[in-house]
Parts: sequence; structure tokens; C-alpha cells
Amino acid sequence: MLTGDLLIGAAAVRGTHGEISAIDPRTGEKLEPSYGLAGVADVARAAELAEQAFDAYRETPLETRSALLTTIADGLDTIGEELIARVGAETGIPAARAGGELARTTNQLRLFAAVVRDGGFLGVHIDPALPDRTPLPRPDLRRRYVPVGPVAVFSASNFPLAFSVAGGDTASALAAGAPVIVKAHSAHPGTSELVGRVIQAAVAEHGLPEGVFSMLFGNGREVGIALVTDPRIKAVGFTGSRSGGLALVAAAQARPEPIPVYAEMSSINPVLVLPAALLSRGAEIGRGLVGSMTVGQGQLCTSPGLVLTVDGPGVGALSDAAAAALRDVPAAPMLSPGIQRAFTEGVGRLQDATGVVTIAVGREDASIAAPGQAFLFRTTKAELDADPALTEEVFGASSVIVTAPTADALAEIVEGLEGQLTLTVHADEDDQELARALLPLLERKAGRIVVNGWPTGVEVGHAIVHGGPYPATSDARTTSVGTAAIERFLRPVAYQNLPSWLLPAGLDDANTLGLPRRIDGR
Amino acid sequence: MLTGDLLIGAAAVRGTHGEISAIDPRTGEKLEPSYGLAGVADVARAAELAEQAFDAYRETPLETRSALLTTIADGLDTIGEELIARVGAETGIPAARAGGELARTTNQLRLFAAVVRDGGFLGVHIDPALPDRTPLPRPDLRRRYVPVGPVAVFSASNFPLAFSVAGGDTASALAAGAPVIVKAHSAHPGTSELVGRVIQAAVAEHGLPEGVFSMLFGNGREVGIALVTDPRIKAVGFTGSRSGGLALVAAAQARPEPIPVYAEMSSINPVLVLPAALLSRGAEIGRGLVGSMTVGQGQLCTSPGLVLTVDGPGVGALSDAAAAALRDVPAAPMLSPGIQRAFTEGVGRLQDATGVVTIAVGREDASIAAPGQAFLFRTTKAELDADPALTEEVFGASSVIVTAPTADALAEIVEGLEGQLTLTVHADEDDQELARALLPLLERKAGRIVVNGWPTGVEVGHAIVHGGPYPATSDARTTSVGTAAIERFLRPVAYQNLPSWLLPAGLDDANTLGLPRRIDGR
Repeated sequence: MLTGDLLIGAAAVRGTHGEISAIDPRTGEKLEPSYGLAGVADVARAAELAEQAFDAYRETPLETRSALLTTIADGLDTIGEELIARVGAETGIPAARAGGELARTTNQLRLFAAVVRDGGFLGVHIDPALPDRTPLPRPDLRRRYVPVGPVAVFSASNFPLAFSVAGGDTASALAAGAPVIVKAHSAHPGTSELVGRVIQAAVAEHGLPEGVFSMLFGNGREVGIALVTDPRIKAVGFTGSRSGGLALVAAAQARPEPIPVYAEMSSINPVLVLPAALLSRGAEIGRGLVGSMTVGQGQLCTSPGLVLTVDGPGVGALSDAAAAALRDVPAAPMLSPGIQRAFTEGVGRLQDATGVVTIAVGREDASIAAPGQAFLFRTTKAELDADPALTEEVFGASSVIVTAPTADALAEIVEGLEGQLTLTVHADEDDQELARALLPLLERKAGRIVVNGWPTGVEVGHAIVHGGPYPATSDARTTSVGTAAIERFLRPVAYQNLPSWLLPAGLDDANTLGLPRRIDGR
Repeated sequence: MLTGDLLIGAAAVRGTHGEISAIDPRTGEKLEPSYGLAGVADVARAAELAEQAFDAYRETPLETRSALLTTIADGLDTIGEELIARVGAETGIPAARAGGELARTTNQLRLFAAVVRDGGFLGVHIDPALPDRTPLPRPDLRRRYVPVGPVAVFSASNFPLAFSVAGGDTASALAAGAPVIVKAHSAHPGTSELVGRVIQAAVAEHGLPEGVFSMLFGNGREVGIALVTDPRIKAVGFTGSRSGGLALVAAAQARPEPIPVYAEMSSINPVLVLPAALLSRGAEIGRGLVGSMTVGQGQLCTSPGLVLTVDGPGVGALSDAAAAALRDVPAAPMLSPGIQRAFTEGVGRLQDATGVVTIAVGREDASIAAPGQAFLFRTTKAELDADPALTEEVFGASSVIVTAPTADALAEIVEGLEGQLTLTVHADEDDQELARALLPLLERKAGRIVVNGWPTGVEVGHAIVHGGPYPATSDARTTSVGTAAIERFLRPVAYQNLPSWLLPAGLDDANTLGLPRRIDGR
């Protein structure tokens, strides 16, 4: 069924700028078919179609746009088994986890379908005219959000469904009324094609302009940069490496018209274990750490890569329990041979670093082509001060336990950290004073604060924030997960004294669409 | 009473890096006192105080923060007469207009005081835990907005009160919970000091940390760049020239941690006159144009500098009436000798441009030191196509009437325009079809669309958008005027499974603060 084509509007076209194939990280085998890569002309054609689609798509009835998202979710469910099998072959993700990710992806699409139906995201405000106000009459002012324009979405490697072709960025952009061009990830092209064809069919089924969705394959950075610098693209969503994200940010800012880039880049997701919690349940926390850091072989943006403690009696229990648990963790395929190589290099640097002790290594498995083994390290604040590179993200199941001499020294480590997606605190009631003192610092450093739990597992809802200060993301003002993600692809427009025959849908006096609206701010 | 000092926290300090004096643009006289300029050490000290103030200020009770804004407004009212006189001396703005601007400024502060009291800006969402959900329990998630950190505000020259020391940027940042460092405008230092001292006293009166507010004078770009690149500054508000704004954006993006810059830069605020309206009331529109373009001697960001028409019988009536009205417009002082020089150069370029006809010039007045005379030009789409520089902003009372051969050609001009703060349309009922066809284009090009009115006069309310696509502003996703401006200085933080003893104010189950909140999105 898979063809290896680019999806440009309603067309499926073989890319002619080289080709790629997925590799099964379990076996090392090359998977069929090969995928033809796009050139700049393909980017231009997709952008042209997206621009042509924009004005019509953004004014489709909310019901239609909502139905589009539901149809995509239904379509993914329909091909669920095929999808889960292909995800497994391309990424090594086991069927149970892939099934969970599929459910998360379709739930997310359906959640945005509900957001669109509700219409609250349009942020309609009406300040009625006050013709008799002195010294000056007040004009009639109405405001709504409009989509920024066509959006480029860069798929992530680690969630081939939830952060990929029909993932959060695509769902929120389509919900906002923005056409989407996906740059598919080269590590799971077959999964991408399966999903892309579901979206393409849904666009056709609802009679929407074909340019609402396109999907391109491209190797290296040429296609990505061409996409970000195309004048018809007005915003970018990206999840991936810091170097990749920063390259897109730089390209977007160098445009004659700079555009926003929402890049989720890197985070080590520190876990603070406060003294009373350490003393009362160090071993339990150690076991919990291993559970969290090895989910998905640690290839999660929220994987805890750093554990910060105050040196004291509980540290031994924590690290002993963690080490014991980690030694039992079986090796499993990493997402791709490239990611596996980068992980091996990363843990190699930690193993070689002065003052860093390797306290446990997970099991090996020679039968896996790209095996991910778990690693646990231990060091001190003094070593961290001497070599800040120890807090750099190692993408995979690797974590470093750090002991600081005092609580103040612990806070000093946090103060020195870069922005993070999450910060986690283990605290008992006896840690109250310290936890309260630390909270403002945590708020300044992270987008999500977790207490007595683990950062992995990002709930898709209204109150979630999956974002954080630079360089965790390029824009701390937004989230990439949850209903608030729709805000990233919107900008406000005010309408002053428009006659009723010119008012856009939803701004009329009678509120024909039944939108939630604020009149005079209430 | 005026000392010429920098205000750094609670201190008043003489700047030692040169000095400036204001010039009365009516007389050319130098005004006392001289103002000592800040150096980078002053910037660092103000930033240090702002950082020290941040965590405490952002957690002040909403009542206190609201009262601070009200106290500032009251303080400005108290010195109203002195302020209006100094504004007149430093900018030539007549007392009636300065009084109106003062009312606008205090209204704005009181509006933000109400926004703070209401607490809706905190955007509190609570998604309660679902411990029994399968396959995975849902954690308790609560979200609120927190301020980004200390904010640098660059005053504008043209609204010495409303877009200056206690203007919209300062009001919205203080409302958001962000300490503010103002880089005062060199053209009205005395006005700045009067206002700055009111804020300084209000901060002290409410027992807030002194670093909540500082104000610096500085010439050239050194102090401004030092401010924007200080690591303790987390966002920037700016209103001014395109070159100034772009320099700040570049500096902010080159930081190790890039930060958002909200720069309002330039806009020519095109006015489209559609055929039926042109025919039925060309002369009336011509007179209205002159009224709008000469408000404040055209030194408004929303001044209409371009009028676009379809060539036809009404064009003569429009331009004749406009020319007649313009010839009667008296000269008046411009804001500063420097602005007057730039205006003279700008209109000189238009006067010399091929195919541009000067159709009217306002009255001269040799008694004014920096006189602003009004200018009206006329040209055609063909000339515009040949020389796109004709659509560049000339800051002052200058406007160009352009005739296009057809309605399609009119749309082509709009399509070729840069992003604008406003676009205005004069349309009769017979223009319905054309107006509807143009609306999506207008939405893509501007932040505010005005029908059968004029762009000057920006209402401060909930539904206003004073912003727009690049290069009108550096960030089309926000507004610098109205209650929504508070969003520019906020970022979301999620709290997962926090015990009640650690939850920040406003997120508790009992909603002790009585905030508007959404539970499960409702």
C-alpha cells in the first residue's frame, strides 16, 4: 500500500532529490518502500497551495473544521493495527506503547475538535459604541483571533504519532484555521505516509481546498530551511534537537518578514529530592527514578536526566535502590541507529568525565541492532561546577545523581540551570519550608512543576504546559501540548465600526454562531 | 523641583555620562534642568534591583498591585497642571491635547488596576485528578500565568504621557507583576522625571521593593542596548522608529537567552476609498482625511499617510476638498527639532519624486522654532510600482493620494504593502461586494480595520488591537494598547500534584482569592 511519495495537496508525487529508507532498529533491516525526497520546487508548490487554501480554510464553518479533525482521528483508528505494526518496524516502539500513543494522538485530535466547536479560542470581545460619551464618542470595536497563515510543522523522532504528522502541532494549527505543511521525520517515513494519507483523504472528504495539508520528505536541512524561509509560511512548529531548532529560529529571524518559531529543543528535567523525603523514602524514590528514566528507553523530552539531593543519610538508599533496579532493566531498541550512536557518545562522555562514577548499567542484548542500555551516574556539586557540560541532555536512558553539601548549594545548582520543560520536587511535609522557598526559583526555570511524582507522562488537557524558558523551548509564552497550544497560531484583529454586512462570522450582534463572547470585558 | 537625576530604585542619582537638555520646539529655547545620562553601571544597578524585587513583587496581593496603579494615576492627576505645562514646553503639544492625553494615561492605569483586581489575567485552569481513570490515572494539574521577569520599556517621543514613563507598556508590565526599567525619551526628560517620581513615590507608599521601578536617561544606543542585553531583563516594550526597534530586536535575539521584544515601529495606515463611497462623498472624505492626518501634526503611529482610490469621477472631489482644507491648516510646533528635520527630509523626497504631484501645502509660521507644515501629494499606482519607497512612513502631516486604474489594481497595491497597524475602508452599501472580497486581505495586513472612519484615535479597551504584522510591530500576536496588552509579559506555568501547602495563591481548592477560573476547561 505504501508508495514512498510526497503528498502535495491532493497529489502524491515521487520526490526526485535522492531517497531514504527506514531501518528497523530491532533488526537493522532496511524497510520498503524507499522514499523520494523533496526539492525546493516541491516546497514552493506546497506553499503555493497552502496560501491559496488559507483564506477559504480559515473561514470554513467551525463545524466543518471540527469534523475534519474528528475524521482524521477516525481514519487513524481505522488503520490502527497497520499503523502500530509500522511504528514498531520503524522505531522499535512495542505495540502496547504504540497503541497508547495512537490513543493519545486521536484523543488530542478529538479534543481540538471540541475546542473548535466551542469557539472560545476565537477570543471574541465586543466593546459596543458609546456615541454620547464625552469628550469623545466611543467607536464600536470587536476583536477576534485569526490564524497567522500557513504553518510548517517539523515532526519529532520520538513520538512517531503524537508529535508527528497528525500530532499536536498539526492538530492545533488545523484547529486554528491554518493550512499545514509537514516536514516528515526521516526515521519513520512509512508511518508518516500512512498518517499523511489519512489527513489528505479527510481534507478531500470535507471538500476543503487541497492546500490545507501537504507532507514532504527531505534529508539534511535544505528542505527544512526552504520551508521556513518561504514567504508564504507564517509560523513554525518544531520538536527535536537544539541545533536543529536553533537553525530554524535563525532562518526564520533572517527572513525579510521574521516569523515565530515554536521549537521544543532540549531539557534534562531535574528532579530535586529534599532532605526529609530523601530520609523517609530514598529507596522508593530511587526505584521511581529508574521507572521514569527508562520509559521509552529515555527517549522522551521529559525524561529525568539529573537528580539533585542534599548529601545525607538517605542518598545511599536512593542510589543503591536505583542502581539495583537499573541493573535489571533490559536493553531495548532505540528509535534509530543514529539516535543510538548519539546516546553511546553521550554516556561515553559521562563515563569518562572526572569525578563522575558509573553506579549502574542496565542489561545488554546483542540480538538488537540498535540497543539502548540504561546508565546511572553519580557525582557532586563540586564536579558540576567544574564542568557544566555534565548537565547537558543525553537523549536516552541516562541519569546523573548529584549531591550538594547544603540546601543552599542545591538551590545554587538550580539557579545555574538552563530553562527546562519540567522540574520535579520530592518533598515531605517536613520539607515545607524549603519547598516553599524554592518554588519561585522553579517557576522561573520551568514550564511545569511536578511534586512527588515524575516528569514523564504529559497529560493532554487544559491546564497542562509543555513548554518552558529558553532553551527548553524557543518561546516560553506558549505550550505545545494541550488546548492552549491553539494560541500559537493565532493573532488578534480588531474591527472598528464595521457595518453589519461586513462583519465576519461570529462578530454579529445576534451572535448567530452562539460563541462564548465578552461584552465590555465581561 | 526638577533635579535632572536618574531614578534607580528609591534613589535619585545624577548620571555622569554626559548630559542632555530638552528644547522647546515652539521657541527653540533650552529648558532647565539638564539631565545627567546613565552608564552601563547604572543599567546594571537598576537591573540588579529589579531582579531582587521580582519574586516578591509578583506575589504581592492583587489588591496591593492594583492599588499601586491607582496611586500612580492619582499622583499624576495631582500634578496635572504642572505636567501639562511641562509637556507643552518640551513637545509643543497644546494644553487641551496634553490634558486629554493625561486623562487617557490615568484611565489606562485605572483600567489595568481593575484588570489586576479581577484576576482573570492569571488564566487559572484546574484539571482535577482522576485517580480511577484507565489505562492511566490523571494527575491533578493547575495552571496560571506568571510574569516573565523584569521588563525594559522604551518611551516614545509622540505621546509623552500615554506611551512614555507611565504609559501602556509600564502599566501592563506592572499589572502583570513585572518590575519595570524605563529608558526615558530624551525629548521630554522633565515630563519623564515628573512622572517617574510619582511612580517612585507610589512604590514606596505601598511598601514594595524599590526595584519595582527605575528610570534612566541615555543618549545614543549604548544604554538601550545594555538594558536589552542585561541577563536579568526578560522582555522589552518599545515604540519608535523602525531602525531603533530592529536594533533592539537584533540585540535581544543575540543574547545567550533570547527574549521577546514588542516593538511598535512604523505604519503608513492606508485608507481605501471604494468607488461608490468615492462617488457619493468624495469631498467629505477628503476633508475627513485632512482632519485625521493633521491630528498631533501627523506625529501619530496611526496617521493616515496613504489614500488608495480607484480612478474615477469622485477622485477630483476628494483631492480638491482635501487640498482646500489642507491649505488652511496652520503650522504648529513638531515634537522636537530632530523630528522636524526628518519630516522636512521626508516630504522633500516626495516633492522631488518623479510622478508625484504636490497638491497642497499647509500654512507656514516663521515664529515657530520647529514648525510642522502639512503636505498633500498625489500619484498613481504606476508610479508606486516603479518606486515602492513612496509607501514608506513620513512621520508628520503628510499623505499621498494614489489612484489605481481598477479595483483589482487597488487590491494589488494592498497585497504589496508591508504589515500595518491599521487599514481603513470607506465603503457605501453599493461597495459591499468589493469590501467583502477585500476583507481577508485587510485582515492579513493589519491589526485593526476601520470602516467609514479614521485610524487616528486608539480606544483603550478590551476589544482594541494596537499591533499588526511585521514591520508595523515585531510581534503580531499581541497588542500594545488595551487590557490584552498584559499578556505580553506573562508565561504559563503548570503545577502537577502539588500538596495544598505548596500551591501558589489563587490555585487552592477553595479559591480563597475568588478568581475567575476554569475547571476542566469550563
